[in-house]
Amino acid sequence: MLVLKNYFLDFIVQHTDTSSNARAGKISTAHGDIETPIFMPVGTQGTVKAVHFSELENEIKAQIILGNTYHLYLRPGLEILQKAGGLHAFNTWKKPILTDSGGYQVYSLSHRRKLTEEGVTFRSHIDGSKHLFTPENVMDTQRIIGADFIMAFDECTPYPCDYRYAKKSLKITQDWLLRCIHRFDTTQPLYGYEQTLMPIVQGSVYKDLRTESAEFIAAQQRPANAIGGLAVGEPADIMYEMTDIVCNILPKDKPRYLMGVGTPANILESIALGVDMFDCVMPTRNARHGLLFTTEGIINIKNQKWKDDFSPIDANVPAATSRKHTKAYLRHLFVVEEYLAAQIASIHNLSFYLWLVQSAREKIINGTFATWKNEMVVKLSKRL
Amino acid sequence: MLVLKNYFLDFIVQHTDTSSNARAGKISTAHGDIETPIFMPVGTQGTVKAVHFSELENEIKAQIILGNTYHLYLRPGLEILQKAGGLHAFNTWKKPILTDSGGYQVYSLSHRRKLTEEGVTFRSHIDGSKHLFTPENVMDTQRIIGADFIMAFDECTPYPCDYRYAKKSLKITQDWLLRCIHRFDTTQPLYGYEQTLMPIVQGSVYKDLRTESAEFIAAQQRPANAIGGLAVGEPADIMYEMTDIVCNILPKDKPRYLMGVGTPANILESIALGVDMFDCVMPTRNARHGLLFTTEGIINIKNQKWKDDFSPIDANVPAATSRKHTKAYLRHLFVVEEYLAAQIASIHNLSFYLWLVQSAREKIINGTFATWKNEMVVKLSKRL
Repeated sequence: MLVLKNYFLDFIVQHTDTSSNARAGKISTAHGDIETPIFMPVGTQGTVKAVHFSELENEIKAQIILGNTYHLYLRPGLEILQKAGGLHAFNTWKKPILTDSGGYQVYSLSHRRKLTEEGVTFRSHIDGSKHLFTPENVMDTQRIIGADFIMAFDECTPYPCDYRYAKKSLKITQDWLLRCIHRFDTTQPLYGYEQTLMPIVQGSVYKDLRTESAEFIAAQQRPANAIGGLAVGEPADIMYEMTDIVCNILPKDKPRYLMGVGTPANILESIALGVDMFDCVMPTRNARHGLLFTTEGIINIKNQKWKDDFSPIDANVPAATSRKHTKAYLRHLFVVEEYLAAQIASIHNLSFYLWLVQSAREKIINGTFATWKNEMVVKLSKRL
Repeated sequence: MLVLKNYFLDFIVQHTDTSSNARAGKISTAHGDIETPIFMPVGTQGTVKAVHFSELENEIKAQIILGNTYHLYLRPGLEILQKAGGLHAFNTWKKPILTDSGGYQVYSLSHRRKLTEEGVTFRSHIDGSKHLFTPENVMDTQRIIGADFIMAFDECTPYPCDYRYAKKSLKITQDWLLRCIHRFDTTQPLYGYEQTLMPIVQGSVYKDLRTESAEFIAAQQRPANAIGGLAVGEPADIMYEMTDIVCNILPKDKPRYLMGVGTPANILESIALGVDMFDCVMPTRNARHGLLFTTEGIINIKNQKWKDDFSPIDANVPAATSRKHTKAYLRHLFVVEEYLAAQIASIHNLSFYLWLVQSAREKIINGTFATWKNEMVVKLSKRL
């Protein structure tokens, strides 16, 4: 087993926008490079819903995908994942993977959860079985899953959240982070390549708490940092305000990951604030409901108006699927409830999201990001 | 618009098995050649369920697929299909297509159907709207869909079916065939390539009726012929007996299509009787339920026993998907109810079916079909 140094992760900022905090960079991992800003398709249960891995690679041009610790821990379970040789070997995805720590799912999905200083006990949403997540065992679990980026175990506060609770929660999240770091730094990866632990800034919508959390995390000097607890129902302006505060504190020379964000406009605005990495279920979930993000605006493909529109779904995104199939055909597939509807729409929406961040990157590099961003935020939010 | 002669279809028998009636042949159509014996994946509503067209072509190696007149007539409807330029243009499949006439679906799906000499009135299974199918308008509909092979409008008798009804039904089917032929021969294709009308032998499980029907149809001297009304619940022995009688009457120099058949064993036995073309929903429907046909036997992939089997789904079929993914991963996808489960299983099962007929063809050509067939019928029916 090849064991490299514990902090194997390289990040270089290649270009910084002059009129915003946007930057173009490159992250190097054991499973290859990631050009930032980047969007990471969500593969909760070890698969990006309705999309083949070959399509993620060849059509969508995904450079990194997500998995979820809570779901993978429950099914297929750690024994299977370890026997398989980790998630990469299990699902055949050869590029980088990031796993969410499961904190969010414990709160949103599981039953009878109870938070203590030790960790969280909860009952599975599948069979009601009882489980305990602690900062330590969540690190061990993510060692077994074997993602390139693994997330600290935290409490993701809901919105709204009163100040008192947010402050108390932040204290627990900080204590847990130190325990995560200790466990991570005293254990080895299992499959011969290094993993990177990302701390998560919390603090709800309170400037002082966000500031405190970001400073605390900046001081840990980990190779990459995340911003959590946003995009949970708060107004976009508040999300941007918190993101801006945090980005100005987190180190410039480390990648910044804004968790669970968001719409195309959210992503562009957050890139302008200095965010490098994004994930969101929106492109795949909306795809399954027939809501398409296109380079011309938003389409509800089930709408009658597309029934005889034989133009391509979107001729401007990389996916051959989006350029080959017509709106009329995709609408038909949704009307008759065929699997292929979700398949084509998911490929398209993800391809659009990757096109979006790749375009932002190009604009940052050629110095036209700010004006382009302001035009696109309007255009991409338009309902066609 | 290019209009060729009305009977554009070429079929050559390349090899005939010495110890059975199996033959290897080649059908030439406006959309390319088909090597027989062939299995045709079913694309009822203009898509093979859960499978992309690129996968049909590149992984499964399908040479022709089916569409269904009843379903396509209802949705997307003839106006959309004609505006699109036919089904090939609508769904992007460039190889041959065959459309079932809708007779079977009118009986199995629609409500309050009433058969008269004129045709069948029925109510849509979707919205209860009232429709009339006649031999003439079903030909017109199939002109609009634009499949390479179109089927005569017939009554597919159920099983069991008393002799008196079967005889009466056969008379109607014969009258309708003559009307189909007249309509077909006095109309033109719409999209610049020729179509081929296939008559359908009926007669339930009665030797004299099957003989009468096959002789009637042989006398029509159409370029290809079909056998219908089997695989509707009768014992396999009776199906083979009827198929044998009919194959001995239908012209040797025309392709023979056994509709709706069947299991891998059914297909091999029917190839031995002289059948060239097959279709069945079994590979795709079973795939969606986790039942896999493999070169080693039948697998219920949901079974606990596959949970840590990291061998490929099937290393002996052409599809890269079947060789790349493990049984353990596919089982996981079924357990967690992911779209990708049906997607991978459908690609696999269809790839297996195409492998099966392609292998039969090779064995016919190299003279080892009979012994191979007898071994495979046992092996492929085994539950692993």
